[in-house]
Amino acid sequence: MPYDVVTFGEVMLRLSPPDFMRFEQTTSYNANAGGAEMNVAVACARLGLDSAYVTKLGDNSIGHFIRNKAREHGVDTSHVQWDPDSRCGVYYVEFGAAPRTNRVIYDRKHSAISKIKPGEVDWANILKGTKLFHTSGITPALSASCAESTMEVLKIAKEQSCKVSYDVNYRGKLWTPKEAQKFTESASEYIDVLITTEEDTKVVYGIEGKDYEDVAAKLTDKFGFDVVVITLRETPSVLLNKWSVFAYSDGKVYRSPTYDIEVIDRLGGGDSCSAGFIYGYLVEKDLQKAVDFGSAFSALKHSVPGDLAFVYKEEVEKLMKGRERGLRIDR
Amino acid sequence: MPYDVVTFGEVMLRLSPPDFMRFEQTTSYNANAGGAEMNVAVACARLGLDSAYVTKLGDNSIGHFIRNKAREHGVDTSHVQWDPDSRCGVYYVEFGAAPRTNRVIYDRKHSAISKIKPGEVDWANILKGTKLFHTSGITPALSASCAESTMEVLKIAKEQSCKVSYDVNYRGKLWTPKEAQKFTESASEYIDVLITTEEDTKVVYGIEGKDYEDVAAKLTDKFGFDVVVITLRETPSVLLNKWSVFAYSDGKVYRSPTYDIEVIDRLGGGDSCSAGFIYGYLVEKDLQKAVDFGSAFSALKHSVPGDLAFVYKEEVEKLMKGRERGLRIDR
Amino acid sequence: MPYDVVTFGEVMLRLSPPDFMRFEQTTSYNANAGGAEMNVAVACARLGLDSAYVTKLGDNSIGHFIRNKAREHGVDTSHVQWDPDSRCGVYYVEFGAAPRTNRVIYDRKHSAISKIKPGEVDWANILKGTKLFHTSGITPALSASCAESTMEVLKIAKEQSCKVSYDVNYRGKLWTPKEAQKFTESASEYIDVLITTEEDTKVVYGIEGKDYEDVAAKLTDKFGFDVVVITLRETPSVLLNKWSVFAYSDGKVYRSPTYDIEVIDRLGGGDSCSAGFIYGYLVEKDLQKAVDFGSAFSALKHSVPGDLAFVYKEEVEKLMKGRERGLRIDR
Amino acid sequence: MPYDVVTFGEVMLRLSPPDFMRFEQTTSYNANAGGAEMNVAVACARLGLDSAYVTKLGDNSIGHFIRNKAREHGVDTSHVQWDPDSRCGVYYVEFGAAPRTNRVIYDRKHSAISKIKPGEVDWANILKGTKLFHTSGITPALSASCAESTMEVLKIAKEQSCKVSYDVNYRGKLWTPKEAQKFTESASEYIDVLITTEEDTKVVYGIEGKDYEDVAAKLTDKFGFDVVVITLRETPSVLLNKWSVFAYSDGKVYRSPTYDIEVIDRLGGGDSCSAGFIYGYLVEKDLQKAVDFGSAFSALKHSVPGDLAFVYKEEVEKLMKGRERGLRIDR
Amino acid sequence: MPYDVVTFGEVMLRLSPPDFMRFEQTTSYNANAGGAEMNVAVACARLGLDSAYVTKLGDNSIGHFIRNKAREHGVDTSHVQWDPDSRCGVYYVEFGAAPRTNRVIYDRKHSAISKIKPGEVDWANILKGTKLFHTSGITPALSASCAESTMEVLKIAKEQSCKVSYDVNYRGKLWTPKEAQKFTESASEYIDVLITTEEDTKVVYGIEGKDYEDVAAKLTDKFGFDVVVITLRETPSVLLNKWSVFAYSDGKVYRSPTYDIEVIDRLGGGDSCSAGFIYGYLVEKDLQKAVDFGSAFSALKHSVPGDLAFVYKEEVEKLMKGRERGLRIDR
Amino acid sequence: MPYDVVTFGEVMLRLSPPDFMRFEQTTSYNANAGGAEMNVAVACARLGLDSAYVTKLGDNSIGHFIRNKAREHGVDTSHVQWDPDSRCGVYYVEFGAAPRTNRVIYDRKHSAISKIKPGEVDWANILKGTKLFHTSGITPALSASCAESTMEVLKIAKEQSCKVSYDVNYRGKLWTPKEAQKFTESASEYIDVLITTEEDTKVVYGIEGKDYEDVAAKLTDKFGFDVVVITLRETPSVLLNKWSVFAYSDGKVYRSPTYDIEVIDRLGGGDSCSAGFIYGYLVEKDLQKAVDFGSAFSALKHSVPGDLAFVYKEEVEKLMKGRERGLRIDR
Repeated sequence: MPYDVVTFGEVMLRLSPPDFMRFEQTTSYNANAGGAEMNVAVACARLGLDSAYVTKLGDNSIGHFIRNKAREHGVDTSHVQWDPDSRCGVYYVEFGAAPRTNRVIYDRKHSAISKIKPGEVDWANILKGTKLFHTSGITPALSASCAESTMEVLKIAKEQSCKVSYDVNYRGKLWTPKEAQKFTESASEYIDVLITTEEDTKVVYGIEGKDYEDVAAKLTDKFGFDVVVITLRETPSVLLNKWSVFAYSDGKVYRSPTYDIEVIDRLGGGDSCSAGFIYGYLVEKDLQKAVDFGSAFSALKHSVPGDLAFVYKEEVEKLMKGRERGLRIDR
Repeated sequence: MPYDVVTFGEVMLRLSPPDFMRFEQTTSYNANAGGAEMNVAVACARLGLDSAYVTKLGDNSIGHFIRNKAREHGVDTSHVQWDPDSRCGVYYVEFGAAPRTNRVIYDRKHSAISKIKPGEVDWANILKGTKLFHTSGITPALSASCAESTMEVLKIAKEQSCKVSYDVNYRGKLWTPKEAQKFTESASEYIDVLITTEEDTKVVYGIEGKDYEDVAAKLTDKFGFDVVVITLRETPSVLLNKWSVFAYSDGKVYRSPTYDIEVIDRLGGGDSCSAGFIYGYLVEKDLQKAVDFGSAFSALKHSVPGDLAFVYKEEVEKLMKGRERGLRIDR
Repeated sequence: MPYDVVTFGEVMLRLSPPDFMRFEQTTSYNANAGGAEMNVAVACARLGLDSAYVTKLGDNSIGHFIRNKAREHGVDTSHVQWDPDSRCGVYYVEFGAAPRTNRVIYDRKHSAISKIKPGEVDWANILKGTKLFHTSGITPALSASCAESTMEVLKIAKEQSCKVSYDVNYRGKLWTPKEAQKFTESASEYIDVLITTEEDTKVVYGIEGKDYEDVAAKLTDKFGFDVVVITLRETPSVLLNKWSVFAYSDGKVYRSPTYDIEVIDRLGGGDSCSAGFIYGYLVEKDLQKAVDFGSAFSALKHSVPGDLAFVYKEEVEKLMKGRERGLRIDR
Repeated sequence: MPYDVVTFGEVMLRLSPPDFMRFEQTTSYNANAGGAEMNVAVACARLGLDSAYVTKLGDNSIGHFIRNKAREHGVDTSHVQWDPDSRCGVYYVEFGAAPRTNRVIYDRKHSAISKIKPGEVDWANILKGTKLFHTSGITPALSASCAESTMEVLKIAKEQSCKVSYDVNYRGKLWTPKEAQKFTESASEYIDVLITTEEDTKVVYGIEGKDYEDVAAKLTDKFGFDVVVITLRETPSVLLNKWSVFAYSDGKVYRSPTYDIEVIDRLGGGDSCSAGFIYGYLVEKDLQKAVDFGSAFSALKHSVPGDLAFVYKEEVEKLMKGRERGLRIDR
Repeated sequence: MPYDVVTFGEVMLRLSPPDFMRFEQTTSYNANAGGAEMNVAVACARLGLDSAYVTKLGDNSIGHFIRNKAREHGVDTSHVQWDPDSRCGVYYVEFGAAPRTNRVIYDRKHSAISKIKPGEVDWANILKGTKLFHTSGITPALSASCAESTMEVLKIAKEQSCKVSYDVNYRGKLWTPKEAQKFTESASEYIDVLITTEEDTKVVYGIEGKDYEDVAAKLTDKFGFDVVVITLRETPSVLLNKWSVFAYSDGKVYRSPTYDIEVIDRLGGGDSCSAGFIYGYLVEKDLQKAVDFGSAFSALKHSVPGDLAFVYKEEVEKLMKGRERGLRIDR
Repeated sequence: MPYDVVTFGEVMLRLSPPDFMRFEQTTSYNANAGGAEMNVAVACARLGLDSAYVTKLGDNSIGHFIRNKAREHGVDTSHVQWDPDSRCGVYYVEFGAAPRTNRVIYDRKHSAISKIKPGEVDWANILKGTKLFHTSGITPALSASCAESTMEVLKIAKEQSCKVSYDVNYRGKLWTPKEAQKFTESASEYIDVLITTEEDTKVVYGIEGKDYEDVAAKLTDKFGFDVVVITLRETPSVLLNKWSVFAYSDGKVYRSPTYDIEVIDRLGGGDSCSAGFIYGYLVEKDLQKAVDFGSAFSALKHSVPGDLAFVYKEEVEKLMKGRERGLRIDR
């Protein structure tokens, strides 16, 4: 402490059948840890930011496994809360190929973090001097007390003059659009960097526009965000995607290049984008670099198995610059 | 009993090297069970049809493994014949990538079913009240006694007013075009639904035409089929295929959409198409729905490892309807 | 219907790290299904008994995976209840080696079956003509409504003149000795075959004795069981165990031989013992054969990965007889 | 050419489920090549002997895989016969743990070698100058023409003054004791080194004795063998065996030490014993060394997965000498 | 001896994470052997050429593993030099997907071959009567004594009237362009067949041209090569490449078709191209066939895991001819 | 900082074939990190000690992988030195079964740490306030500059009043007994806790005695150690070992119980013993507890794959207390 970035949210044991196997036929699962905010904390650490991750986990080997995965990348996990009586959430992910989509089964109800309450985490201390706090719309959606805890930390962040980035990340299985809208609108006054998609903006804010710029402008007008970041994914097939990032701030527009992606594992792709953007925003203090960093980092993450961004900053920079040798072997 | 669908044919232990390994270099094989008619029985069961599968297997653990694989999906295997003195067929399949094709080595000679003889299966009892009997041109090609047994069951099916569907499935390693033609022409009088490809039609019936419709019309004219189903696969590469289905009945033509397929495992793809078509034909009683169901089911099957269609009916229906979110994650 | 054996209880997705890996270090889990009563139903089917298994499962691919695993062995699963809103229980099992014991983490709270209520299952119909109903002390321990549902089926079994076998199977994480005692004593009037260990008898019934015979006699005197079966495991190490079975009925004592076991997977070992005993009791109607069958079946099960008894009846019989060639290759 | 050792017999694709899985439950097989005589040829090559292996294989990738496995160790396979129209034999092996024994399913009927006929192999040329020819009782048992071919090569070996070693290796699934006896007695006049077990001697020669020495003496008296080698395996459990070797020649007795073996894979264990003995017999020309070499090599082989003896001669010698550091890490 | 082809160079243990895992996250490595010249020797053997491979390896199990991999394909390894005191080189290869490139980490310093000196190999004897000697620009780049040893063998080859093919294969981590140029220019007088890319030609020879033909013509003019072969790879993505080959000789130009390749493993792709070209050059003595053979063989190799070309000559020929059935299953 | 424990030494990429495969036959390696001092740092962290680990690594993904493995357990790696121009050491370990021993091939020459020089690490700062510094006799054996660097840190530790523990760990492949003796005798004045075996004491100090006590007494008399710890391993077989620990201090003797161990992975076993002893010595300040903790921790470690002690402190304590239920399942 103080940190560059602190994130807060749920992380789950992630179980995925290998080799495109379906849940009903698999005889084994690959085990990883995944959750939007831990993904961001890890991705920030990969870029050299001093990051900490706060969550609440079941105090058993599954929880320890998850914690270790963050620690492996140098993320500070000393503020994680431990609950010996609750379970860790689990999510099952099945990888498809066109026309079969990827499929996720969440088994996250009754998890330790869903029971977290305001006052449990010493946020004032953790955020003192921290540059940026990040969470996503998944955290408040987990339970009523999670929503309260999220609001609590947003307010404390503001008091501590800590920037706030917030990824809308609407999950229809967790709350209704109405519930999402109610929380998100209240929360928006504390948010500096809003990360969203066109679709989520419509669902959560009820805002549409004639194009991305228009949507971002309306959001900014209404809530006064410092920056609105919109991520754009095209899915011509399951194994080939296109990815780009757009940011709007103070009437100006910043667009990243569009990457053609041979998708190995798209889970966590958006989260590395957030981390890349945060890096550009906090360190480079240049929004064009932020969208470029976010899109390139995310494009690279899509080729890495697991939610976590095993990518080097140098690789991101090299991709941003392009290279004479193109997609040849790096040897 | 009575069943919606009963199928009859050979099923083998299927051994495939993982990870695009070649036979000469692999140190392990993935083990599955596969055979056209069992694939159809399983796929029918997945769609909610009451199905039974008849074959003859070596009475050893390899045979039991194969039987279990059908039973796992709820297929009735109580009519399987067991032979303690014969082997189960084996087929080895090697997955390629362009320009290397998939390759199959069959080791099916002297298998239990090749020795089956008319009179061994109590077909009259099994087919009493059954709606549809399905087999393919592989079954009669296995041996002379298999051809006789196939003819036996076709006749009994007709006597029992059980519809018959027949997948031409020409295999040049099992019999000559001439042998195939002789059997298939005789059998055709018992067939209601003929499933074929343009190429197989030419080889087995010696019939060509200016287009699919013409071929189907000629077949119908000559043999009086209720429906002729033609499956169309395009192979721009090994890992990307296009798939669609065409049906002709009573002078009318039904065409499915064409699916772009990222191929994980194409074995059994045609068989799920047959099952999807049978479902539309038997339950929906609508030939347009039948070709749509067949093509969508088959397209999804191509993404599933193994011959067996670990696909839900709801997934087929969702794909048929299309979805706003396209090929995004289902979560 | 009618069945030889019907069982009722929870079954979970079982996840186990391969190769003696610990939970914190594993990168994959082997996936199986396991639960005392499903294990018994499967083991009975392996012995040729017509068995059905009743449970309540989350209506998703995890639940279907579990159901399929029973169906693979020919167990009737048509009475399984499906709940689209509840999860399936999960249990994690880590295999140890001396002095590290096997370790289990249960994540079974809030599972579908824990919400089952009396009246949901048509027991009268299912048990009509059925020879034996089996459950264990785990089922009533899952929740209050599970206890009520268990009591419901025990009474109906009695009304239907269906024998009842009950495996005490005390689990300290699910209920207290006091709760267990209260339920079990009330249930005992419906039980014909009580399967227990010396230790569980002490905890659940508060009964001790100078030896196994004495304990069994006291139980019989108090509750009027037809048979009391006591299983005896010695654990000189984790990978080597000794196993034998003892039965007491009508003042007489039946002892199996003691098997030296090289343990591959001891989960489900007790359940195959129950199935073997049930087989001897129902079919052979000979208590000496029952203990012999139970112990031999169980000894063989310990060598099979997973909870389910992939063992042939012929293998059990061969082991009971002993063989000249001892532990040589069977070829 | 000329070779130190030439062997002749069948080699099969060997498929074994990993991790003590049973055939009915495995989803993959480890693939190896195995067959008594190829095992001997490879083991001889490991010891530095110039060896060749003769067989007949299906001319497909399965056959090439098998051939490559011998070639990998430097065995000359240039005399292998290829048959494009026949299959390669397959054997399935399941590894057990007490009280479950290892189990083998052979699927070797109709294999290429079963169709070999006298005159197909240019034995006179191959054996010219070769020091020792080795085969086993499996080869003549495969088919009538295999028996003739075996007799053919035995005679040619004798004409070429090439020593003959013969491993009785009785397989009850291939021929009856009577058939075995008829062949083996005729063949015995060509045999210099007879390798057998007490049990096989009784079955194949009908000879019993009061102890090993007596049996060996009777065999020698009747057939005039140069040496009789008897291998002794004790199986207190499946995973722990004891192994030793006994030889009798010219009235003298040679006994190896007895090794305690933690069994990983006992298939091929006897064959490395034969190779070790042959090495001592041919190179060291010392029967005590020969039994010592055979038993030590075989003991080490039991710890190596697969039929083939991935063992160094230096390891055999080190084990024979014993070492101060015992079973510590070699680093 | 004499051989069709002899190659000389380094071969390493090749370690690659499975399933697109990154080095930092993998828990296992697939093990293969790979090195340009051994790849060529193996690929030549696959095409029926009598080939030998010369290198120097650490005399330990890693070195033996590598040697065995060549021997498995029938390559003569009897001239390999063994050094008990030196290590074998290792290279780590990570497979990527766009926009992440494949990445290689070499750990080859201080390897056995880097210490080889002129006079250690009996080249005069090995090359007597040999038709073609092949090496690549990697060999002289390994160390000063390797450069001397390479020059030594080139001269001896010339003296023995053995053709020389040389793959420029510039590796910037091993030497500077200046060092490369100095060696390669001196060596060029001994080279008959120069295999290169446009890029390497520029770096190593400092030669550029308006097109491939121009470059090849300039090279030929300056150094008098018999043939200049230029391989052309396009990398629209990581998993899809295009591949073709161009040759120039005596003022004439030969172009292969361009293959669309679904890339499984591109390592060794260029080496099978060299082998295919050599085959056409030596055996077919037809440069058009040589470029066709080279490109088709290489295209097929790209679908095979590992450096070594597990491809049949018949497959190459079939691909060269094209086939009616296109990319369908070969069954 | 300040730390409880700081360790210093080499850590390598550890590659081990799975499933008892030999180096020559394996097609994959399991990847772990291992090295005596990192093992101790990790094991200390597992016991709740604040530990840091100092080494020098190649600055590439292999080095990062290794660093991450320590960080995963919460070890501070911020003092690791990075060398972009040097390799990381590798060690290959093959697991055997009696009579085949485990075998290790070291490929550690020229590694980054072998080039470390005095002055590179800011020891004064790192050790300020640190309670205990630990290294082993492997570190000075790596190179002359490593020996100097080790001597440097020992002196600084003494200046900082930091206790020193030293594990003799003689490796005959790294230095001669004479070299070892010279260094170790000089170093001994800085050592408080000497950890050794009877055998190593003889080799490195030339000291023998009539029993352990005598040896320890002589060592203490000569060098004034605070404690001498002697670990005792018996190897009746490869997969079953016995393990106990003995300590001598101030004329008193402390003996742990002897554990029967079913060995899964003995690498790192001694290092967890050191860590357990250090824990008892530093925290419990009770030598009897220290030997008990060391032996129990080590016994448990032997069941865990990899060098690192994935063991909980609670498990060690439970084992030390013994438990009524013995080696039953912990559920």
